[in-house]
Amino acid sequence: MLRFEEARQIVNNALGSYAIDRFPEELYEPVRYILSIGGKRLRPALVLMACSVFNDAVHQAIKPALAIEFFHNFTLLHDDIMDNSNIRRGQPTVHERWDPNTAILSGDVMSILSYKIISESDDRYLKDLLQLFNSTALQVCEGQQYDMNFESRMDVTVGEYLKMIALKTAVLIAASLKAGAISGGADTVDAELLYEFGMNLGMAFQIRDDHLDVYGDPDKFGKKIGNDIVTNKKTFLLIKALELSDPEMKSRLNNLLGNKNLDPETKVREVTSIYQQLGIDSITADLASAYYEKSIQYLERVNAEAPRKESLAEFAEKLMYREA
Amino acid sequence: MLRFEEARQIVNNALGSYAIDRFPEELYEPVRYILSIGGKRLRPALVLMACSVFNDAVHQAIKPALAIEFFHNFTLLHDDIMDNSNIRRGQPTVHERWDPNTAILSGDVMSILSYKIISESDDRYLKDLLQLFNSTALQVCEGQQYDMNFESRMDVTVGEYLKMIALKTAVLIAASLKAGAISGGADTVDAELLYEFGMNLGMAFQIRDDHLDVYGDPDKFGKKIGNDIVTNKKTFLLIKALELSDPEMKSRLNNLLGNKNLDPETKVREVTSIYQQLGIDSITADLASAYYEKSIQYLERVNAEAPRKESLAEFAEKLMYREA
Repeated sequence: MLRFEEARQIVNNALGSYAIDRFPEELYEPVRYILSIGGKRLRPALVLMACSVFNDAVHQAIKPALAIEFFHNFTLLHDDIMDNSNIRRGQPTVHERWDPNTAILSGDVMSILSYKIISESDDRYLKDLLQLFNSTALQVCEGQQYDMNFESRMDVTVGEYLKMIALKTAVLIAASLKAGAISGGADTVDAELLYEFGMNLGMAFQIRDDHLDVYGDPDKFGKKIGNDIVTNKKTFLLIKALELSDPEMKSRLNNLLGNKNLDPETKVREVTSIYQQLGIDSITADLASAYYEKSIQYLERVNAEAPRKESLAEFAEKLMYREA
Repeated sequence: MLRFEEARQIVNNALGSYAIDRFPEELYEPVRYILSIGGKRLRPALVLMACSVFNDAVHQAIKPALAIEFFHNFTLLHDDIMDNSNIRRGQPTVHERWDPNTAILSGDVMSILSYKIISESDDRYLKDLLQLFNSTALQVCEGQQYDMNFESRMDVTVGEYLKMIALKTAVLIAASLKAGAISGGADTVDAELLYEFGMNLGMAFQIRDDHLDVYGDPDKFGKKIGNDIVTNKKTFLLIKALELSDPEMKSRLNNLLGNKNLDPETKVREVTSIYQQLGIDSITADLASAYYEKSIQYLERVNAEAPRKESLAEFAEKLMYREA
């Protein structure tokens, strides 16, 4: 069994010694930059931890782990352009520090590097890993497109939202676990069970993320409370609130969203007050818990001794009850 | 032996029946669009033609052929954003018809689709094809970055220029031929010889491209003569002219490039007149010919009967002496 902190250390060491000794500098400097400004390395750590459920030789899973981290960072580079985000991990985003063209091309090269790395995986598992990687990568792009489509829509349903976060967020967490399982020599049933563990955990993770934005402890959250409300982001909370509100409340909510002159603090207070009247806090927390519980059930069904699965269970619990 | 027109037909049929039946529409519609507005299919046709040198079962090479066409079109989507080009194949570019975000994400998805397709290649050749594809893809990005770097530089050397077009243009033509050879079961020596045939042909192709922009027959060229001059593009002609000109002529050339009020026709006429005094026409034509001759030498060394190589020789000749 490999604990998260150990896994993260292995990932960071491997990333540190993965020499990107190619030119021109203008292309590869932003790649080194985005990898160097941090990130929790959740996904690659999950690859190694999933491998360790079946096999102590966790280094067998290092290539898919790195490939997934490169892929994830590629999506960040491009998403930040599309979402016009200026800050990532407390630092300027690549398109902000350099320019959009640099972020486009460096992102492209990171995506190709992720394929280069996955191609270096153990021959025995290459075909399965590629198939998993290809379908997951397409789904992540599809999720990003749905997310962008939602920006200009006020009629997004809860079902559509859940599908979007499944694609944009949960499948990559699920694929990380499955890639680790494959690399550890797990059979297809166990690999699938870990995939489902990851899908449900990923859903819980994103819904908890939406929840924290409003109900996080300001002293622990690290970011400003209510940022999603200020930016009119289509979170689970907002979509559920629009679904549950009667015509009068819905019109109040729409007015708050449409009023560009409203100061941010008032907007957050007013929207939160509507959430309160509709019970959005507990509805959201309950949904996240339901996904979390389901994820644990999948993990329990994985055919391995309980101690080997302990670090994944611990990880899931921490992810679920995190404060930031 | 497979002639270019037959190869192109097979490629177009395969592209037509390659169903991209995924959602959302907003993501995949631009992919279908860029594939539908034409393109000569040079690269995928070369894959099939190279395969046919060694093997009549050219369908063995269809996956790498399609993968390379998807990859090429992905680079077009992103290059057009970076170069701010509004027209491609006589039609609006994707970022123009939709918007830059759409072009970024649809490009990403095309790049992933190209990997999905190459991953479906014959198991026997998968590892070799992936390695070729990965290193080629990185090189193409590197070439694009050098090309962008050159925009703001007036001191680009001929050597730097040749390296840039080798990366941006020639390696993908070379890789197309090598991928076809691999898929046809060629040995590594012949695969390498075809790669070098492609490298030299690709160099000739790009230099001829630069040459045609100024010295093409206006009735046959299809585009406006001198567009590269108008846009100050760092072509072989301009770089060579800057290298060969004495201080006085260099200063005249720099004034022409820097003068934003000059009408395009005068600029083309004046720059062309400097080219004429420096003998740029024949220097450029000679260099293209030298690469072409070298490419043919590599082709001749490929261990196959001459008739099997005839269509590639014919293709190279046509590419070299094309008028548009």
